[in-house]
Amino acid sequence: MLQPILHKLHNQRIVLASGSPRRQEILRNIGLKFEVITSKFEENFDKSLFSSPVDYVNETAKEKTLEVANRLQGPGCPDIIIGADTVVSLGEKILEKPQDKNDAFTMLSSLSGKSHTVYTGMVILTKTDKQSKHPFDILQFHEATDVVFGELTPEIIHGYIETGEPMDKAGGYGIQALGGTLVQEIRGDYYNVVGFPLHHFCKQFLKLYAK
Amino acid sequence: MLQPILHKLHNQRIVLASGSPRRQEILRNIGLKFEVITSKFEENFDKSLFSSPVDYVNETAKEKTLEVANRLQGPGCPDIIIGADTVVSLGEKILEKPQDKNDAFTMLSSLSGKSHTVYTGMVILTKTDKQSKHPFDILQFHEATDVVFGELTPEIIHGYIETGEPMDKAGGYGIQALGGTLVQEIRGDYYNVVGFPLHHFCKQFLKLYAK
Repeated sequence: MLQPILHKLHNQRIVLASGSPRRQEILRNIGLKFEVITSKFEENFDKSLFSSPVDYVNETAKEKTLEVANRLQGPGCPDIIIGADTVVSLGEKILEKPQDKNDAFTMLSSLSGKSHTVYTGMVILTKTDKQSKHPFDILQFHEATDVVFGELTPEIIHGYIETGEPMDKAGGYGIQALGGTLVQEIRGDYYNVVGFPLHHFCKQFLKLYAK
Repeated sequence: MLQPILHKLHNQRIVLASGSPRRQEILRNIGLKFEVITSKFEENFDKSLFSSPVDYVNETAKEKTLEVANRLQGPGCPDIIIGADTVVSLGEKILEKPQDKNDAFTMLSSLSGKSHTVYTGMVILTKTDKQSKHPFDILQFHEATDVVFGELTPEIIHGYIETGEPMDKAGGYGIQALGGTLVQEIRGDYYNVVGFPLHHFCKQFLKLYAK
C-alpha cells in the first residue's frame, strides 16, 4: 500500500521508538527502512487514573515516543519517529503479563469462550519544516481488534502454560505463535493484535506524504 | 492447544498432503511432526457444477487428500493424512490467480472497499484399526473468514501489482505479506486466510485423540 510514496522516503531518517521485535518485523516486511531506538519512558502510569484502556494506551504511546524525540532533537534529528503501545483488555480491565503460572491460569481462564479487545495507540512524529518552538508535528490514532477465544479446558490451558509462552506476553498469549491455536475468531486487523495496526498506519502514512 | 495429546502422536506417521509452504509453516509452528507428500490430483473441477464455493472447496480438498491416501496404502501406510484446499470468493464467484497484470488490477479493484470470503476445506484421514474395506476414516470440515479491504486508489493497486506479489496468489493478494496492508478488517480465523484454519483444526484433532 505504501509503494506510491516509498521513493519519497529514501532520504528520510525514520526511527521506530519501540524495541518489540514483532513490530520491527511487520514494518520491515512492508519495505520501510528505519532505525530502532527504544524508548526509556517507564510505563508506570496509574491505570486507575484513565477513563478507559484507549486513553491509557494513547497516553503511554505518546510519552514513549516523545521521550525518544526529546533525546534526538538537534542536528541530525530524525524526519519521522514512529511509536506504539498495545494493551489487552477484558471489559475495562487491562491485562498485564502474568506474574506466575497461577496468574497465567486465571488470566487465560477468564478469556476462555469470550471476546476481549486489543488496543494499539500509535504516534507518528514528523519534523516541522518551519522555524517552530516544537520540532515535531504529532499525529495520533488508535485501533481496536476484538479477539474471541474458543472454550478452553483446564488441560488445554495447563498444557499451553507449560510451553512457557504465556509468561512474557500481555494477556498471557501470543496470537502469532502457539497462542494462535486458542483464537476462534478475530474482528478487526490481525496485525493490531500482534502489536502494529498495519492498515490504519499505512492509510495515515500515505495521507502524510500525499501532501 | 494440542499439548495434551502431543505425546500420543510421537510414534504416528503424519502426512500433510499439501505443497503449500505456508500450511507447512503453520503446522510446524504448533509443534506437529509430519512429512509432506504433495497431491497429484489435478484441480480441474468445473466450478459451475458446484452449488457454492464451500461445496467446491470441500470436494477438491477431499480428492486431493484421497489421491495421496491411495498412493500410500499398504505396508507403512500413514496413521494420519491431513489435506486442505482454500479458495477466495466474492459473492458466489471464486477468484483464481490473476492471469496477467490487467486481470490483477480488475480483481483487486473488485475487492476494494468491500468484504469477500476465504473458505478452506479440511480433510483428516485416520487409519482404521479394524480389518475394513476402507483403510481410512474420513473427517471433513470447513472454515470461512470474511476479509474487508480498505478503499484502494488505482495508484495503490498499481503499486502493489508492480511488486509482483499478486501474480501467484488466488484473489491476487497475500495477507501474510505486502497484501496485509490492504486489509482493513477480518472476521474469523486469520490463519484460515493464510490457508489453514488453525483453531478449528486443533479442536477437531483434539477430539479425535481424546477418544
